[in-house]
Amino acid sequence: MPNEIRILSEADLRGIVSLDLETVEVIEAGFRALAGGGVVMPPVLSMAIAEHHGEVDVKTAYVPGFDGFALKISPGFFDNPKLGLPSLNGLMILLSARTGLVQAVFLDNGYLTDIRTAAAGAVAARHLAPEVETAGILGSGVQARLQAQAAHLVRPFKRCLVWGRDPEKARACAADIAAATGAEVELRRDIAPLVAESQLVVTTTPATEPLIGAEMLHPGLHITAMGSDQEGKCEIAPAALARADLYVCDRVSQCARLGELRAAREAGLIEATPPELGQIIAGDGPARISPDQITICDLTGTGVQDTAIANHVARRMATTGTVFSS
Amino acid sequence: MPNEIRILSEADLRGIVSLDLETVEVIEAGFRALAGGGVVMPPVLSMAIAEHHGEVDVKTAYVPGFDGFALKISPGFFDNPKLGLPSLNGLMILLSARTGLVQAVFLDNGYLTDIRTAAAGAVAARHLAPEVETAGILGSGVQARLQAQAAHLVRPFKRCLVWGRDPEKARACAADIAAATGAEVELRRDIAPLVAESQLVVTTTPATEPLIGAEMLHPGLHITAMGSDQEGKCEIAPAALARADLYVCDRVSQCARLGELRAAREAGLIEATPPELGQIIAGDGPARISPDQITICDLTGTGVQDTAIANHVARRMATTGTVFSS
Repeated sequence: MPNEIRILSEADLRGIVSLDLETVEVIEAGFRALAGGGVVMPPVLSMAIAEHHGEVDVKTAYVPGFDGFALKISPGFFDNPKLGLPSLNGLMILLSARTGLVQAVFLDNGYLTDIRTAAAGAVAARHLAPEVETAGILGSGVQARLQAQAAHLVRPFKRCLVWGRDPEKARACAADIAAATGAEVELRRDIAPLVAESQLVVTTTPATEPLIGAEMLHPGLHITAMGSDQEGKCEIAPAALARADLYVCDRVSQCARLGELRAAREAGLIEATPPELGQIIAGDGPARISPDQITICDLTGTGVQDTAIANHVARRMATTGTVFSS
Repeated sequence: MPNEIRILSEADLRGIVSLDLETVEVIEAGFRALAGGGVVMPPVLSMAIAEHHGEVDVKTAYVPGFDGFALKISPGFFDNPKLGLPSLNGLMILLSARTGLVQAVFLDNGYLTDIRTAAAGAVAARHLAPEVETAGILGSGVQARLQAQAAHLVRPFKRCLVWGRDPEKARACAADIAAATGAEVELRRDIAPLVAESQLVVTTTPATEPLIGAEMLHPGLHITAMGSDQEGKCEIAPAALARADLYVCDRVSQCARLGELRAAREAGLIEATPPELGQIIAGDGPARISPDQITICDLTGTGVQDTAIANHVARRMATTGTVFSS
C-alpha cells in the first residue's frame, strides 16, 4: 500500500498560511503545550561546514494531541549572497505522530520558519508588553520587518523606531514596516534613544557583542531578543538580563546554550532557572505584575513552533500542492 | 531564481541503485573518507515517542570532496504492523555542500538505508573475513537477506546457515537467500553450531541480550554485528568482544552509545579505543594479520554512509523523478 505524500512549494505555502492572528494563536498553543507534560523536544542537531562558511540545524518536537510532528532542516550558508543566492533556505517534513509515515514535504525555503519565529515575538509581546505606543526594532533584515508586523497584530502601536548598522538597509526596512503596519516609522542613528522612547523593543540582529546595556532599561520596557540562536551570539548585556524584573526563555536548555542566557551564566549573573514563555501563557510561571516592570524574553526558536506551524499548514492544505505515492 | 528540487519515489530509486559491487565501493569510499580529516558527523538526533511506541533518528555527515550531504530521517513505529504498515519508513534529503540548497528528496521508505547498511557489511567482510566457505546469518528480517547478499558479492560463499527465533520466518529467509545467492542454505536450530561451522557470521537481530558468547569464538572467525543501533541493544557478549584479536567500530563514539561497545565498556572489559573500519580500509589501523585471528566489526550505521549513497543516487538520477521549483 503506497504512502501518499503531499509536496508543497514555497508559493503554495504562501498561498495558505501567513503571519496573522491565527498563526499567532497556533504558535501560542505550541508554547502552552511545551509547558504541559508529554512534549519531547531533543536538543537541536547542528552541523558546521566551515569549508563553505555554512551550517545546518535540525529541529523537531513531538507534542501530544497534535496529529503530526515536524522535522525542520535549516541550512545557513553565508557566502551565498556572493553567488546571488539567499543565505537561509531549507524545508520542513511533516510525519504522522502515530505511524511515523511521511505525510508532507514543505519546500518552504525558510518561509515557515520566518513566520513561526515572528509569531513567537507576538506571543511574547501579548504576554509581557502591556502597553505599546512606540515599538523599537533593532536590525533591518527579514525578521526586523516580520517582528514589527507580528507585534503590531497584538499591540497596534502608532510609532515604530528602526535602527540598523547599515543606514541604507535600515531606511528600506523602515519603509516596509510603515507600509505593512500603517505606523509612523522613524530611523534612529543610536540604540540608546531608540530604547528610551520605546515600550517594546525587538532585537533581530546577528550581533556577537551586546547592543543593549543595563543602563538603557527603563520602567515599562519589554525586550524580545530573538537574534541569538547560535553559540557566540549575544544582543543583550548580561547585566541587563540580571537587572530586568522578569527574564523569560522560550526553552531554558536552549537559551543557556544558544541564547542570551549563555553569556549571563558565564558572567555568573543569572544562577536561578528562569521561567519559560509557555509557563507564563499557561499561568503557572511568574507573570509581569505591573506596567512599570522591566521584562526580557529570550527566543532561540523551538521545534515545538515548527510542529505547531506544520500542523497548521496540514489543516489548511486540502488539495494544495502535488501528491506523490511512495 | 527558484531552486530546482528533484523528487524520487521508492520505485524511482529501486530503478537506479541496488545492492551491487558499485554500491559497496561507494560505501567503502565513505568509510575511507571518515578516517581522513575534514568529515563532520554530529551525534545522531534521536526522539522517542513512547505514547505511540515510536522513535525517529536523524543522521547527517559532511564529507569533503562530495558535492552534497544527506540528511536522513528514519522513523521506527513498532505498532505499525498491527495497522498493516511497515515499522520502518523515512526519507533522505540531499543538500548542496556548497550552498545548503535542497537538491533532491528521496522518498525511499528506508530503501537507501537498507542497501547502505548491507553494503557496510560487505565492506567489513572484504577487509576482515579473508576466506568464507560458510556464512552464518542470525536473524530473519530484511537485513538478514541483504547482509547475506552483500557478503556474497565480496566473498562468494558456497554454504549459508540461517538461525532465527521464529522457525517459519527463518525458513522463508533461507529460501530468499538461496534464491539471491545460489548458495546452499540450511537452517540451524541453535546458534553455537552455526557459529562453529561458519567463517563469517553476521548478526542482524534486535536482541537486547547477547546471542554469541566468548566460548563460541574459534580461529578464523569474523563476526559483523549490525543489529545493535540503539541504547539497550546487544548481540555479542562483552567477554567475546574482549577475546577477539581485533574489534573494530564503524564509529567509536556511536558504538560506545548504541553498539556492542556500550555493554563491554559497562562491564569494564574494553578500556582502549578500538580502531575504526575506515582506518583499516585506509591502511592506518591494525589489520587482521593472520587467517587464524578472530575479528569482530560493530556497525551502528553512520551519516557518512547516507551521504555516500545519496551522492551515488545523485550521480545516477539524471532525469529520473519529478522536478519541483521552489
